[in-house]
Amino acid sequence: MIDYRSDTVTQPTPQMIEAMSKAPVGDDVYGEDPTIKELEQYAADLFGMENALFCPSGTMTNQIAIKAHTTPGKEVICHEWAHIYNYEGGGVAFNSGCQVRPISSNDGKFKAVDVEARIQSNTDIHAAPTALISVENTVNKAGGTVWSTDEVKPITRVGQIHNIPLHLDGARLFNALEAVGETPADYGKLFNSISICLSKGLGAPVGSLLLGSDQFITRARRIRKVMGGGMRQAGIIAAGGLYALKNNIDRLREDRENAIKIYEAVKESAICKSVEKPQTNIVLFEPTDDKPLNAVLTEMEKYGIKASPMGSKIRMVTHLNHSHEEIVRTCDILRSL
Amino acid sequence: MIDYRSDTVTQPTPQMIEAMSKAPVGDDVYGEDPTIKELEQYAADLFGMENALFCPSGTMTNQIAIKAHTTPGKEVICHEWAHIYNYEGGGVAFNSGCQVRPISSNDGKFKAVDVEARIQSNTDIHAAPTALISVENTVNKAGGTVWSTDEVKPITRVGQIHNIPLHLDGARLFNALEAVGETPADYGKLFNSISICLSKGLGAPVGSLLLGSDQFITRARRIRKVMGGGMRQAGIIAAGGLYALKNNIDRLREDRENAIKIYEAVKESAICKSVEKPQTNIVLFEPTDDKPLNAVLTEMEKYGIKASPMGSKIRMVTHLNHSHEEIVRTCDILRSL
Amino acid sequence: MIDYRSDTVTQPTPQMIEAMSKAPVGDDVYGEDPTIKELEQYAADLFGMENALFCPSGTMTNQIAIKAHTTPGKEVICHEWAHIYNYEGGGVAFNSGCQVRPISSNDGKFKAVDVEARIQSNTDIHAAPTALISVENTVNKAGGTVWSTDEVKPITRVGQIHNIPLHLDGARLFNALEAVGETPADYGKLFNSISICLSKGLGAPVGSLLLGSDQFITRARRIRKVMGGGMRQAGIIAAGGLYALKNNIDRLREDRENAIKIYEAVKESAICKSVEKPQTNIVLFEPTDDKPLNAVLTEMEKYGIKASPMGSKIRMVTHLNHSHEEIVRTCDILRSL
Amino acid sequence: MIDYRSDTVTQPTPQMIEAMSKAPVGDDVYGEDPTIKELEQYAADLFGMENALFCPSGTMTNQIAIKAHTTPGKEVICHEWAHIYNYEGGGVAFNSGCQVRPISSNDGKFKAVDVEARIQSNTDIHAAPTALISVENTVNKAGGTVWSTDEVKPITRVGQIHNIPLHLDGARLFNALEAVGETPADYGKLFNSISICLSKGLGAPVGSLLLGSDQFITRARRIRKVMGGGMRQAGIIAAGGLYALKNNIDRLREDRENAIKIYEAVKESAICKSVEKPQTNIVLFEPTDDKPLNAVLTEMEKYGIKASPMGSKIRMVTHLNHSHEEIVRTCDILRSL
Repeated sequence: MIDYRSDTVTQPTPQMIEAMSKAPVGDDVYGEDPTIKELEQYAADLFGMENALFCPSGTMTNQIAIKAHTTPGKEVICHEWAHIYNYEGGGVAFNSGCQVRPISSNDGKFKAVDVEARIQSNTDIHAAPTALISVENTVNKAGGTVWSTDEVKPITRVGQIHNIPLHLDGARLFNALEAVGETPADYGKLFNSISICLSKGLGAPVGSLLLGSDQFITRARRIRKVMGGGMRQAGIIAAGGLYALKNNIDRLREDRENAIKIYEAVKESAICKSVEKPQTNIVLFEPTDDKPLNAVLTEMEKYGIKASPMGSKIRMVTHLNHSHEEIVRTCDILRSL
Repeated sequence: MIDYRSDTVTQPTPQMIEAMSKAPVGDDVYGEDPTIKELEQYAADLFGMENALFCPSGTMTNQIAIKAHTTPGKEVICHEWAHIYNYEGGGVAFNSGCQVRPISSNDGKFKAVDVEARIQSNTDIHAAPTALISVENTVNKAGGTVWSTDEVKPITRVGQIHNIPLHLDGARLFNALEAVGETPADYGKLFNSISICLSKGLGAPVGSLLLGSDQFITRARRIRKVMGGGMRQAGIIAAGGLYALKNNIDRLREDRENAIKIYEAVKESAICKSVEKPQTNIVLFEPTDDKPLNAVLTEMEKYGIKASPMGSKIRMVTHLNHSHEEIVRTCDILRSL
Repeated sequence: MIDYRSDTVTQPTPQMIEAMSKAPVGDDVYGEDPTIKELEQYAADLFGMENALFCPSGTMTNQIAIKAHTTPGKEVICHEWAHIYNYEGGGVAFNSGCQVRPISSNDGKFKAVDVEARIQSNTDIHAAPTALISVENTVNKAGGTVWSTDEVKPITRVGQIHNIPLHLDGARLFNALEAVGETPADYGKLFNSISICLSKGLGAPVGSLLLGSDQFITRARRIRKVMGGGMRQAGIIAAGGLYALKNNIDRLREDRENAIKIYEAVKESAICKSVEKPQTNIVLFEPTDDKPLNAVLTEMEKYGIKASPMGSKIRMVTHLNHSHEEIVRTCDILRSL
Repeated sequence: MIDYRSDTVTQPTPQMIEAMSKAPVGDDVYGEDPTIKELEQYAADLFGMENALFCPSGTMTNQIAIKAHTTPGKEVICHEWAHIYNYEGGGVAFNSGCQVRPISSNDGKFKAVDVEARIQSNTDIHAAPTALISVENTVNKAGGTVWSTDEVKPITRVGQIHNIPLHLDGARLFNALEAVGETPADYGKLFNSISICLSKGLGAPVGSLLLGSDQFITRARRIRKVMGGGMRQAGIIAAGGLYALKNNIDRLREDRENAIKIYEAVKESAICKSVEKPQTNIVLFEPTDDKPLNAVLTEMEKYGIKASPMGSKIRMVTHLNHSHEEIVRTCDILRSL
C-alpha cells in the first residue's frame, strides 16, 4: 500500500530515530530541556525572529497565536478555506471567542483590497473589530497553492496601516519556499507570528513551532500552559524536529517533482475529470462522475494506492517515504485505471 | 427634521405612555410582574408556542437563543448579512464560543441546498459540528427583503432531517407577515425559537421577546440572568410592548406603502444611482458616484431628511412617527434634490 | 401581606411614575436619549467620576466591569459571599473566562493583607494572574454589613501597588453611605469602577449604573452591546432612576431605623435563635431549631409577613414601601410568634 | 547536584529509550498509531474502564475532562489546593467557562458532607449549578497526602445521588495505590473519568492518559483536537509511557521509603522548623524562621541538593533517578546543615 493521504503519515527514518535516542533532555516546564531550547533557537534564527515555542501540534501553534493576538469579541480575516477555520474544530471561537470573516477565491489566496474591505474598526460597537489577519502558505484545501512574498507584502502593508497583526499558518511553508526559491528569513519580516509544522513534509513524528517576538512568545508560553501543551522531557521529539530542519528541507524539491509526475499520470487516467498542475506536493483532482468519490478511492486502494477525499475532490500528497520505485508504480497504476 | 435612519427611533405615543403608567408591576426576578407575564403569554399564544421571555433588546434575545441551542466549538449557519453575524458585536463567538458559516446571496435569503452543503456532522473532529440554522426575516442588510413560509419550509425540513434546531431573528417579522399576508402562528410551527422586537416598527420604547418551548425558555431564563438581562419591575416597559402588539401590527401596511412612495421619489431623484422596490418598510438605494456617500447624507439633512449609511448604500426606514404630510414633503424634497 | 423578602420588590410611587411618563426620550443606541444622558451625567458628577453607563441590571453592570477589567485566564479576588460569585449565575467564568479567588470572614469584609496573600503575578505560568479586586458594600449575604472608606483605603492601596484595578459592587452603597455618614464622592476616588443599583432601596423599577473613566465606559459600552444590554428609548426607565437619585437617598435612614425596630422585635421573638443588630436595612436571623426554616417562613406568612431564606438564616429587608403602621404591626407579630 | 524539585525532572532510562526507538508508529490523527492504541488499551484494562486517550500533559487530560463534563456557567467542587485550581493557569474558567467552589482542609482531602454543602441545583438561576466534583490523589500541594478508596466512596455516592460526575486527578495516583495497597481497578469503579501522568514518578518523558467510558473518550478526543493536543507519530513517546506502566509501578515503594529517610533527616536538621511524615514520595517541611526561604534553598543547593519552594514551605520529591548512594548523601547533608 502506497500512502498518499497526507504528508503527516510519514514514518521517522532510522537516522532521525537515532538522533532522538541520543538527545539530551530536561524538564521543559522548568526551561531545562537543552534540545528543545536548541530547536527553538535554531528555528528563530532561521526566520530572523526573536523567539520560538515548541508545541505538540500545528493546531496548537495556530490557536495559541490567534489567542495571543486577540481578545474575545474580535474578528479574524482569513480565506474561507483556511485551516484555522475548517480543520481546527472551531477553535477560533472555542479558544479565543473570536469570529472569522472569510474571503473567497479559487486558489486560497487573496489580495490587500479583499482584506481592506473587511477591516472593521473599534468605533462602531455593532461590529466585531478586526484583530488579526491570517495567511496560509501553502494553502492545503486549494491543493498546496503557493503565495510568493510579493503577494504577501501588500497584505502586510494593510495590516501595518491599520495596526492589525498578521499570522502565517506555515504548516507547509517549506514546500512553498522551495517552489518559489525564497527563504524563511524573507518571511520573518512579513509576519508578527509564524507557525511551522515539523511533522508534515519535514518528516518529524511530532511537533510544531510558533515564532514571534520575545514578548509574543512569553504570552504564547502562558497560553500553551493553560491549553495543556507544556511537556516535560520533550527534547526527544524536538530532536526529530531539529533533525528534520537540518536535513529534510532541501529534499522537498523531490516531493514537488513527484507530485508533478503523479499529476501527469492522473491527467491521463480514466478516473480523472479535471486536475490542476501542482505547485507543491499536493495533487488535487476531480474524479469522473461515473462513480461516487468513495468508490474511486476504494478502487485506488484495491490497486495499492491510498488517497484521501477533500470535499468533492481526491487529494494525493507526496512525501519523503515515497521511493522512486513507488512513484513509478503509482503512475503506472493511475494511467491504467 | 424627518428621521428615516431606523424604525428604532420611534417615540412612544401618549396612549402607549398611558398604558405604561397604569401597568401593574412586580419583581420579575421572583416571577411576580403581572404585565410581563401577560405580555409573554400573549406573544406565546400569538405564535402558538409554549412560552416566551421578555428581554431588554433583540441582540439579547438572539444571543440567548444561540447560546441555548449550542455549546462552544459548534457552528451556526446563517446569511453573510445576518444581524447576528454583523451587528451584535461578534456575540456568536463572544457569548457562545461558536463560529459562523455564512451563505452569500443578493437578497439575504438562501435555499435548503445552501444549508445542506454547509452542514458538518459530529464525526470528523477537524470540523465544528453544525448546531444551529438562523434565518432573518425581514433581512435588514438586504433592505427589508421578505421570506415567505414557503421559502422557509425547506430550510425547516433540512434542520429536522439533520436534527439541527432553527432560530428566527424576527426583529421585523411583523413587517414580513404584513407584506405576504401570513400570521405569527404560521411561523411558530417552523422554528425552534423566534426573536421578535417590540421597539422597531411596533413602536414600543424598549424590549424584545424570545419564544420557544417551555424547556427552551427555562434554559433561556438562566442565560438571561448570567448575561444581566433580568429586570425587576419591568412591567412598565412590557406594557408598552403589549400595547404595541395589540395596536400597532395592522398599521405596518402604512409603513410599507410609505416606503413605496419614498422609493418612487428616490428613483426619480438626482441623488439616486439605483434602487430596488421595497418589500417592506426599508428603502435602500445606491447614491450617484458624483459625491461621497457622506456628502449625500449631509445634503439630505440640510433639507430636513435624516437617513443612514449601510455599506455603500443609503437606508431610509419608514415608521409610525411619520405623518402623511411628512411623507409627502420627503418625496417632494427627494425629487427636487 | 407585608413584603420583606428584598428591597427589589418596591413599587414605583405615583410621583416617580409621573416623572417617567413625562421624560423626553430618544434612541440611546444612537446616544440620543436625553434622560439617559442626564442620568449618566448626574451619577458621574455625584461620584466625581468621568462617565457612567445605564444598564438593565446590577448583574450586568458588575459583569461588564469584570469583563472590561480582565481577559480570560485571570483571577478575581473577592469575598466568598460576594454577589458576583454567588448570585450572578457563574458569570465571572461564563462572561469573562476568569476564576474567583475567594476570601472568607464572618462579616463579608476583608483586609489588605488578605488580598495581598492572594495576589498572583504574571511570571508563573501555572497561576492565573490577579486582574481585579472586587469589594461589595453593603455585603448582602452578610446581612447588609457596611465598609467605611477607612476600611477600603488599604485595599485600594494594595491594588495601586500591584497595578490591579478595583471594582465596587455598590448595589446598596447608598445604604452604606447613610449608615456611616459618607458621600459618593468619597468612593469615586477609591475605585476604578463602581456599580450602583437604582432598583433596590432607591425604589426605581429597573436599572443600574456603571461608573468609571471615559476610556473604561467606552469599553463598557461595547461589552454592554454584545451582552444585549443596549436599549432604545430607555429614558422612560432612566427617569425613574433619576427621580430616585434626587429624592430617595435621604430617606434610607428610615429603612435602617425600621430594620433596627424589626431586629429588636425579632430578638424577643420565640422564632429567633440568634440575630445581629443590623447595620443597614437588612435583618438576618437564625431561626430556632424547633422547626425547619421553611416552616418558620410559612408561619410568618400566615401572619402576613413575607421574608426570604438565605442559607440557614432568614432575611428581612426594609424599604420605602413599608409604612410606619406596617413596621409597628410587623414588630407586634414577631414578638407574639 | 541531586534534584528533588519534582518527580517530573526524571530522565528516561536507556531501556525506556530503547523501547521508544523500536516502537511501531503511525498517524494517530487517523487512529493508526499501534503503540498509542496499545498504551490506551493497556491503561483502560488496568483500570477496568472502557477507553483511554493519550495526551501531551496532565494539565490537558484534566482540562479536557472538565470541559467534557461541563458547559459554561457551571461550578466545579474541589479542594482549594487542587492542581486544577492552582496550577493550570486558570483553565477551569479559560477552557470551560466554569467557576470553582473550593473546600478547605489541612490535608487536601474532604468529606461527603463538605461536597453536599456546596452542591447547587439547576433550579435557582442565581447560582451556577454544580457540574463536577474533582478529587486529587495524591494531593500535591498537601505534600503527597493519600486518599483511600474508603474515603473516596462517600464522595462517589454524593455524586451519584445528585447525578454529578466525578473526576480524579490522579497525576500521582500510583504513589497513592502503593501506599495503601490498592489497585487501579478499585478506582475505575469510583470515578467517571481519571487522569494519570506517565511523566512523574513513573519516569516517562512525556504524556498523560485520560480514562473514561467510550462515549466520554469520543467527546474528549474532539476537545483534545480543538485544544491542539492531537499528535501524529506520538507512538514514540507513548512507548515510554507503556514501558513505565509495565516496569515502574512496583518500584514506587522505594520512592516512599526514600522520602521517609529524607523526612527523618530533615526532622533532625537545623534548617527545619516542622515537618510531617510523608505518605508518599513528597517531603514538605517548614524551614526555620532564621532566614528567608530562598536563602535556605540556596544553602541547600550549595551542598548539592535542589529542592523547590511551595508557598511558605520547602518541597523535596523522591523519584527513580535517585540512587541509594544519593539518598544517603542527602540525608547526611541535611543532618549536618
